[in-house]
Amino acid sequence: MTQIKTLRSLLTEDGELRVFLKDADMPVPGDDEVVVEVEATPINPSDLGALVGPANLAEAKNDADGTLVAPVDPRFMRMAGARIGKPLPVGNEGAGVVVAAGKSDAAQALMGKRVTCMGGAMYATHRTVHTAMTFALPDDASARDGASCFVNPLTALSFVDTMRLDGHKGIIHTAAASNLGQMLNRICLDEDVALVNIVRKQEQVDLLKAQGAKIVVNSSDDDFMDQLTDAIAETNASLGFDATGGGNLADRMLTAMERAFSRDADNWSPYGSTVYKQVYLYGGLNLNPTTLNRGYGMSWGIGGYLLTLFMQRVGMERMMELQARVGAELKTTFASNYSHEISLSGVLDADTARAYNLKATGEKYLINPTLG
Amino acid sequence: MTQIKTLRSLLTEDGELRVFLKDADMPVPGDDEVVVEVEATPINPSDLGALVGPANLAEAKNDADGTLVAPVDPRFMRMAGARIGKPLPVGNEGAGVVVAAGKSDAAQALMGKRVTCMGGAMYATHRTVHTAMTFALPDDASARDGASCFVNPLTALSFVDTMRLDGHKGIIHTAAASNLGQMLNRICLDEDVALVNIVRKQEQVDLLKAQGAKIVVNSSDDDFMDQLTDAIAETNASLGFDATGGGNLADRMLTAMERAFSRDADNWSPYGSTVYKQVYLYGGLNLNPTTLNRGYGMSWGIGGYLLTLFMQRVGMERMMELQARVGAELKTTFASNYSHEISLSGVLDADTARAYNLKATGEKYLINPTLG
Repeated sequence: MTQIKTLRSLLTEDGELRVFLKDADMPVPGDDEVVVEVEATPINPSDLGALVGPANLAEAKNDADGTLVAPVDPRFMRMAGARIGKPLPVGNEGAGVVVAAGKSDAAQALMGKRVTCMGGAMYATHRTVHTAMTFALPDDASARDGASCFVNPLTALSFVDTMRLDGHKGIIHTAAASNLGQMLNRICLDEDVALVNIVRKQEQVDLLKAQGAKIVVNSSDDDFMDQLTDAIAETNASLGFDATGGGNLADRMLTAMERAFSRDADNWSPYGSTVYKQVYLYGGLNLNPTTLNRGYGMSWGIGGYLLTLFMQRVGMERMMELQARVGAELKTTFASNYSHEISLSGVLDADTARAYNLKATGEKYLINPTLG
Repeated sequence: MTQIKTLRSLLTEDGELRVFLKDADMPVPGDDEVVVEVEATPINPSDLGALVGPANLAEAKNDADGTLVAPVDPRFMRMAGARIGKPLPVGNEGAGVVVAAGKSDAAQALMGKRVTCMGGAMYATHRTVHTAMTFALPDDASARDGASCFVNPLTALSFVDTMRLDGHKGIIHTAAASNLGQMLNRICLDEDVALVNIVRKQEQVDLLKAQGAKIVVNSSDDDFMDQLTDAIAETNASLGFDATGGGNLADRMLTAMERAFSRDADNWSPYGSTVYKQVYLYGGLNLNPTTLNRGYGMSWGIGGYLLTLFMQRVGMERMMELQARVGAELKTTFASNYSHEISLSGVLDADTARAYNLKATGEKYLINPTLG
C-alpha cells in the first residue's frame, strides 16, 4: 500500500516541542470524502500556534532524524494544557489534486480535479477532506493560486460584514500591507467602504498607495496619532481590526477614535463620547501584554476575533456566498503573494522555522509537499 | 427672591481644578418639572469624574473663599478636552422634598412629597428635575434611605439582565463588598443566579458570608487563582463585572475562566475554549493601565460598561420595571450604608476631598445640603 507523510507537532510533558513527519497508509475516502494530493499549503500566522506554539525557536535544532526540537518555557506549559502529549496535525488550508473519491456524486465529480480545501492537517502529502470543505479551482488556476482561498479571503470579507452587522461606518486595519491587508484594501475600494490602513514602514505606505489605498498611516511617523485622529474624523471609522494583539496599538486606535469623535463635542461627559468604539484582536504578532490606558470613556470594547466565531454568527448560507466570491475573484481581489516555497521536510529545518516564525509582512511561506 | 447654592467643578486652561459653590436665583419649574430641596445626595465613584476629575488631590488646598484648588498633571489635560473652561454641575442622584411644582398633574401630585431623583447637578441646595426622573418615596423612607435609588440599584439589576441577554450562566463581581456589591449579592440570592464575589480583605469575606453569599474569593490569598478557577468551574460564570478597571484583575478573571472551561477539554485548540468570556469594566478604582496577557484564546471580550448604554439597550419600559422594584425593596435589597454625612460646603474641604476620593469599600459619603 502506498505510504503518505503527515506533519505532527508534539509538546512533551518535559517541556520540549518536537515537529516531525509521520508515515501512514494511503487513506480510503468515505462516501462524501476525497483524498487530495497536496501541492500547496500556506504557513499563516494562524497555523503557527499549532505548529511551533510557545517554543523558543532561538534554541531550536534538528536531531539526527530531522525532527525539529525546541525548548518551551515552563510558564507557557500551563497554557498549553490539553495539547501536551498529543501529536497535533497542522495546516488549515491548501490546494492539490483529488486522487481518490468516495461513492457520492459530489465526491466523484471532483475526481482528478485540482481543488482547494479547508481541512486542517493540510501539512501532509495527502489529506482526506469532506466535499463540503472542498471546491474545484478554475481551470487556469494553479495550486499556488488556490492555496489560500479560505483563511485570509474569508477573514477580510468577514471584517466588512462585521462592520455592517455592528453598525460601524468604517474600518481601521493594522499590519495592513499583509496579504490579508491587501485583500481588505481591494474589497473596501470595490465596495466603497472607508478604510484606514496602518503600516509600520514607508515602503508599505507606497505599496498600498500603488494599489489605490485612499488612507495609509505610518505608525513609525512622529505625528502618527495626529494622522490617525484626522483619518478617523474624516471616515468615522469606529471599528478596528488589529493583527498585532500585544503592546499599545489597540489602545492608540481607541484613543485616536475618542479624540476624533470628541472634537466637536459641546457637552463634556466623564464617560466620554457616545460613539461605540470597538477593536478586535485577530492576531498576536506582538507577544507582549496588551496595555489599555482607558482614555476613551466607557463606550468601547476590545476582544478576540476568530473566523469560526464569525461563521457561527452569520451562518452557512452567508459563508457560501462569500466563498463563491473568493472563487470568482481568485486571481484579482484575493490574490496572494509568497516569498518562499519550501518542501514538507523543509518545515522542520530549524533555520527555516526561525525565519517563517518571524511573521514579517512580505515574508510569506508556501509549503509544496510534492518537493518532498 | 430666594437664593440657592449649586456646586460647580471647573478645569481651567492653565491646568487648575477649582470646585466652588455658586449662588443662583430660586428656579421656576416648567409645566412637567418640580423643584426639589435636596436633603441627601451620595458621592458615588461615578460622580468623582466630574467632581475632581484627574486633579492631584495630594496637593489640593482651600483658598480664602473656601474654593477647592488642585493642580492637574498636563498629560491629563488633553483627555479633559471639552470640559476645560466650563463650570460643570455635579451629582447624579439624590432625595429631598418638592418645594415647587409645575402646572401638570404629574408635577402637582408631587408637591410637598419627599422624592428621589436622577437629575444630574444634585450637589445643590435645590434642583429642578423632570417628573419622569422623580419618584415619591414610601412614607416610612427618609431622604437618606432614598438618596441612592438609581445608580447602584439599577446598575446591580442591569448586571443580571445583561447576563441573561448575553446568554451567560453566572456573574463574577469585583469590589464585591461595596454597597453595589451587597445589592448584587441580595439580588442574585433572591433570583438564584450564580455569583462569584471577589474581595480584597478577610473582613469583606466575612461581611458577605454573613449576608448569605455562597461564593466569596479573596484576591489577597496566595491561592486566589485556584480558588477563582474552582468557583468558575462550579458556576460556569463567564461574565465579569470589574469595578477596578486598571491593573490585571480583568486579565486574571479571563485567565481563570479559560482554565475552568478548558479543564475537561479533549481537543486542544490554539484558539482556546469556545465559551465566550466577557469582562465589563464599570469603574476605574485602579487608575493604572489595564494589562491583558491574552492567555485565553480568541473567544473573549472586555469593554466599558455604563448604565446609560444599558438603558439604551433594554428600553424605557424595562427600566421602569426595574425602578419599580427598587422602590418596593428600598429598605431591604437596595439598602445603602453611609459612613460619613457632610454638608455641601464640606465637599470643598481639601482634607475631606482626599478622603472621599479614596473610594475605599465601606467608606461612603453622603452630602446633606440642608447642613449648609
